[in-house]
Amino acid sequence: MRSAALAFALHLLEFSTAFLFAIVLSAPHAAAQTQLPVNLMPQPASVKSGSGALRIDANFTVVFTGHTEPRLERAGERFLTQLHRQTALLLAKSANNLSQATLLVHTDHASKEIQELGEDESYTLEVTATGAKLNAANPLGVLRGLQTFLQLVEVTPDAFAAPAVVIQDQPRFPWRGLMIDVSRHFIPLDILRRNIDGMEAVKMNVFHWHLSENQGFRVESKKFPKLQEFGSDGLYYTQQEIRDFIIYARDRGIRVVPEFDMPGHSTAWFVGYPELASGTGPYSIERKWGIFDPAMDPTNENTYKFLDELVAEMAKLFPDNCFHIGGDEVNGKEWDANAKIQEFKKSHNLKTNEDLQAYFSQRVQKIVTKHGKAVVGWDEVFIPGVPKDIVIQSWRGQQSLAAAAQQGYHGILSNGYYLDLGWSAARHYAVDPMSGAASTVSDDQKKLILGGESCMWSEYVDAENIDSRIWPRNAAIAERLWSAQAVTDPVSMYSRLDVESARLEWLGLTHRTYERKMLQRIAGPASPEEFAALRNLAEVVEPVKDYTREQTAPVEPTSQLPLNRLVDAVRLESDAGRHFSELVDKFLASSCHDAVTATQLRTQLALWSQNNAAFATLTQKSALAKEAILTSRDLSALGIAGLRALDAIAAGKPLATDQQSQLNSVLSEAAKQKRN
Amino acid sequence: MRSAALAFALHLLEFSTAFLFAIVLSAPHAAAQTQLPVNLMPQPASVKSGSGALRIDANFTVVFTGHTEPRLERAGERFLTQLHRQTALLLAKSANNLSQATLLVHTDHASKEIQELGEDESYTLEVTATGAKLNAANPLGVLRGLQTFLQLVEVTPDAFAAPAVVIQDQPRFPWRGLMIDVSRHFIPLDILRRNIDGMEAVKMNVFHWHLSENQGFRVESKKFPKLQEFGSDGLYYTQQEIRDFIIYARDRGIRVVPEFDMPGHSTAWFVGYPELASGTGPYSIERKWGIFDPAMDPTNENTYKFLDELVAEMAKLFPDNCFHIGGDEVNGKEWDANAKIQEFKKSHNLKTNEDLQAYFSQRVQKIVTKHGKAVVGWDEVFIPGVPKDIVIQSWRGQQSLAAAAQQGYHGILSNGYYLDLGWSAARHYAVDPMSGAASTVSDDQKKLILGGESCMWSEYVDAENIDSRIWPRNAAIAERLWSAQAVTDPVSMYSRLDVESARLEWLGLTHRTYERKMLQRIAGPASPEEFAALRNLAEVVEPVKDYTREQTAPVEPTSQLPLNRLVDAVRLESDAGRHFSELVDKFLASSCHDAVTATQLRTQLALWSQNNAAFATLTQKSALAKEAILTSRDLSALGIAGLRALDAIAAGKPLATDQQSQLNSVLSEAAKQKRN
Repeated sequence: MRSAALAFALHLLEFSTAFLFAIVLSAPHAAAQTQLPVNLMPQPASVKSGSGALRIDANFTVVFTGHTEPRLERAGERFLTQLHRQTALLLAKSANNLSQATLLVHTDHASKEIQELGEDESYTLEVTATGAKLNAANPLGVLRGLQTFLQLVEVTPDAFAAPAVVIQDQPRFPWRGLMIDVSRHFIPLDILRRNIDGMEAVKMNVFHWHLSENQGFRVESKKFPKLQEFGSDGLYYTQQEIRDFIIYARDRGIRVVPEFDMPGHSTAWFVGYPELASGTGPYSIERKWGIFDPAMDPTNENTYKFLDELVAEMAKLFPDNCFHIGGDEVNGKEWDANAKIQEFKKSHNLKTNEDLQAYFSQRVQKIVTKHGKAVVGWDEVFIPGVPKDIVIQSWRGQQSLAAAAQQGYHGILSNGYYLDLGWSAARHYAVDPMSGAASTVSDDQKKLILGGESCMWSEYVDAENIDSRIWPRNAAIAERLWSAQAVTDPVSMYSRLDVESARLEWLGLTHRTYERKMLQRIAGPASPEEFAALRNLAEVVEPVKDYTREQTAPVEPTSQLPLNRLVDAVRLESDAGRHFSELVDKFLASSCHDAVTATQLRTQLALWSQNNAAFATLTQKSALAKEAILTSRDLSALGIAGLRALDAIAAGKPLATDQQSQLNSVLSEAAKQKRN
Repeated sequence: MRSAALAFALHLLEFSTAFLFAIVLSAPHAAAQTQLPVNLMPQPASVKSGSGALRIDANFTVVFTGHTEPRLERAGERFLTQLHRQTALLLAKSANNLSQATLLVHTDHASKEIQELGEDESYTLEVTATGAKLNAANPLGVLRGLQTFLQLVEVTPDAFAAPAVVIQDQPRFPWRGLMIDVSRHFIPLDILRRNIDGMEAVKMNVFHWHLSENQGFRVESKKFPKLQEFGSDGLYYTQQEIRDFIIYARDRGIRVVPEFDMPGHSTAWFVGYPELASGTGPYSIERKWGIFDPAMDPTNENTYKFLDELVAEMAKLFPDNCFHIGGDEVNGKEWDANAKIQEFKKSHNLKTNEDLQAYFSQRVQKIVTKHGKAVVGWDEVFIPGVPKDIVIQSWRGQQSLAAAAQQGYHGILSNGYYLDLGWSAARHYAVDPMSGAASTVSDDQKKLILGGESCMWSEYVDAENIDSRIWPRNAAIAERLWSAQAVTDPVSMYSRLDVESARLEWLGLTHRTYERKMLQRIAGPASPEEFAALRNLAEVVEPVKDYTREQTAPVEPTSQLPLNRLVDAVRLESDAGRHFSELVDKFLASSCHDAVTATQLRTQLALWSQNNAAFATLTQKSALAKEAILTSRDLSALGIAGLRALDAIAAGKPLATDQQSQLNSVLSEAAKQKRN
């Protein structure tokens, strides 16, 4: 095993600081709590509570009227399956008899055969004590409304029930996407499918499939089979699998937008087809992370001939109207080193590599358009004069969206929604596509801002932990994109997110169950006490945020290194840490520092203060635990410091200066990223 | 929701009693701990430790020599997959080059095409610091040895490694089975497959598939399609699915023995074919549990004609040499009520219904034999004069095995291995097929006792919780049947079982992860504190043992009632309760009641003493939690009582008589099964 860096940002810092404040002042910290009577996520546009509740028992039936189609039948079966999972009730297959329906669903007409941007997703849902009615213009609205109904069902003092309510709902944005990078780490289809289920649950409607990268080309091409044969380590999706997956997503009201990233991020293409590249090759699949030199040769007509044939094949395989061509992060080094390319730039009056990329981009956009698709690309494809039907996906921010909109271009926001950066749900939740520069554009221009996409880049995720890197935080982003702009209270969001996170488990997502297996691997032959110490520690630490993990790693990370460290096992956002912070807030807000909360805090702090004793013996048994020894010491030091702070509060006098500075040093030590 | 009984046997009783003893005497309770240097389960016949360890890293390779076959190739791939799961190491596909092998596997020759009773499963495994060698006569031994190797791999202070060791191993018994009843509750194939994986991990070799019952006929018959069409609610396995499943099991060295239970336990057959029955019908699928009246008509030649054709079809579908015909629990009421049958008894000089069943049994045995199979049946099929090749599966006990062996018949033990009874692993572990009456037979007769089978009857299990009802306890039974008779120490067993239980999760078994989803359903809109209270309670209660659940239920249980109660969610054996008992033992055994252990006990007891406060508020929100209110009160009362006992010990004087009697009443109250 390599001697690896341990790099944790301790969530603990936040509450410890709060403790110190408590010594000198006692300001209320708790945000005003606005809570819906029901735990819906995303929050609907309008919810009016009625009186009573609809009892849900084994006699429950759902009946579909109006427009029918096989997709709606399957939706009905899936709805009953999910209702069974939530309640364990043994529900009969539903009747056709309208008068027997507990839930009566009416669909006016069909939606588009190939789901399109901006289709009506609205629905109304009325629940009374005697029955429920769901009405929608088309099957998309029905799908959304069925999920809302499922979220209404909860155990009550008597039975399972859905509260009486009238809901009118429609999305704020027409593009609510999740991107998954399946190239840096290959993600098997069963895992993608359960993530599609999760997207449906929170009403997202675009799955953006990042299919090619330096580290892998993940689609079977029959036209150019060396793409997958040489560029995927055998890890790719067959065309039949892709077709089935697209049907699976369409069943859930989700479009599938493929991305083939070019002209950079494309080393894996060149392993089988080095003639596409600007360098001399040979090329091999990239194993490291970062931005690399290889790029397609934009000066070679054969490049465009190849792309024309490939896009023709892929445009047929992926029916969606949108086709993502990537376009990000070309460093230009291969172009600079190629005399023929330099010659071309001169002869075509292309002054910079950006100009050259713009030339490439325009050529590729014409190819994509010729095959009947609208282009989507990262910020870099937004260049003067590109056709108006392109969609800019902004990793740079709202100012890019504003600039695009002002020139009549569509945009979606991903800056602020990068799930791999380890931000809290609240931080993602606070990012609005319409904020900042985007808020300054005209109302007509605002309509060009279509929504957003969360992005799951996969340097540090694999099949084992990817669910936990997407969920539950992605549900907060889904709410941002569906619900009204004014819905921003993080307290309400977290309260509903906790419930939704649990519900998502019934879909087969493993974002909560994955953890013990990974901790067990780290713990190896631990005693129960040692394992408990590992869990206690894991519960309150979080991986470093943003891109610091790469910067602090002692060994350059590659796709070949196993993701089996504590940093891979712990959740990106610590629920326990957050709940503890809330407890601290409650304690500080209470006028006389209420005794029950104080005891709860003291119990937790005492546990942490003692935790390192058992953890330290585990580090002598397990190399994977050993990495975390300094972090474990920090936790115990913080526990001790917290207890002292509580003592001072109880005694009613501030800490002496030297005690304060000792606390400060514990806090600043804990805030440092740890390396063994 | 129905108002349901809550019936829990509190594990707590055990340690509370221990506390009381502690007041008057301080006898050591801890059993002498004999522990292997490695966590193997089942324990091999011979283990000799070497020095050093074999490092396991990404360069690990396995190479097969000698006899080869596709099954071994697949075993190699599966082995690498599992090694990856345990370590997360990215292992390359293995080389063919012998000199590069980390693990060199040699197979002498093929095993039987259709796996047979008593085939050689022995292997030798030698691990040194530089490499490992696995040798076996045939692929079965290789499969067993590969599992042993996987169990040797653990995280160490430096890396993953397998300790240097020389193992020679073979099973004690040739029949080591697990029976799953898929009829009372249908169990989907993916769940059966992961249980087959679990069986392979602990070296079991017979999957006994209880396929028909009053509550369901689960096999597609092409000859008699009304069996599944009318008798299964649409929940059955197609013939192709069965063929694939048998290949899956064979790949793992596991035989598949089908059971078609007759002449009783067969109501589901009669829904489509009432003419087989002794009553007048019509029949419908049974929804209740128990022993019912319907039975086949043993006096009608058409019954035997039907069975002849069905057995012909099924004997072809299931290649195993053994064919289980059930034969248990006929109450004879339909026979008594049928004049024609009474007439038949008289004319054939069959005095009792047992005689009549013996007649039926002999006829069916001839049919089964004619189609090339050996008969297996429950105790009841053991009747004078049956052919010597039958195997008696005893639900009655070792005395049946002894009686059978004395007359030259084979037997396997299931009495003592009924997983649905909720016994502890230690209790199952203490049951030996060769004990009691079986120990008194001659050595030659002992050879007729082939082993045993654990039985998972499915009244109270469904797809959601079945793994938890089988595992980890089944691993202790597997050890009983594989390892030497002298391997009986429960302390060592539990220590290794904990490790194996965690390892089994990597196979996809959900025996530990299922619980939170079920608790979440019960908790509904609980606060974090309330959910924690539910978990604290769930952790230390166990469902009632044996058949008391049916006896105490206020509503007659049926297959239509959802299994969503706390009794369905909690584990059959509480690990936390056991660990607490161990802590109590440790405390009592320490000469001066050591302070660290006292603090651990006190912390746990304090938690329990306070737990009912949060739980009580949850019971006002959730009908499913409300059921457990009395049990929750018991837990808190026990916590308080335990703290008092600790106080008395700390003070060094016994409790006053009235205090003692108060403690006693808390204990006896907690021991009662609760009903709300």
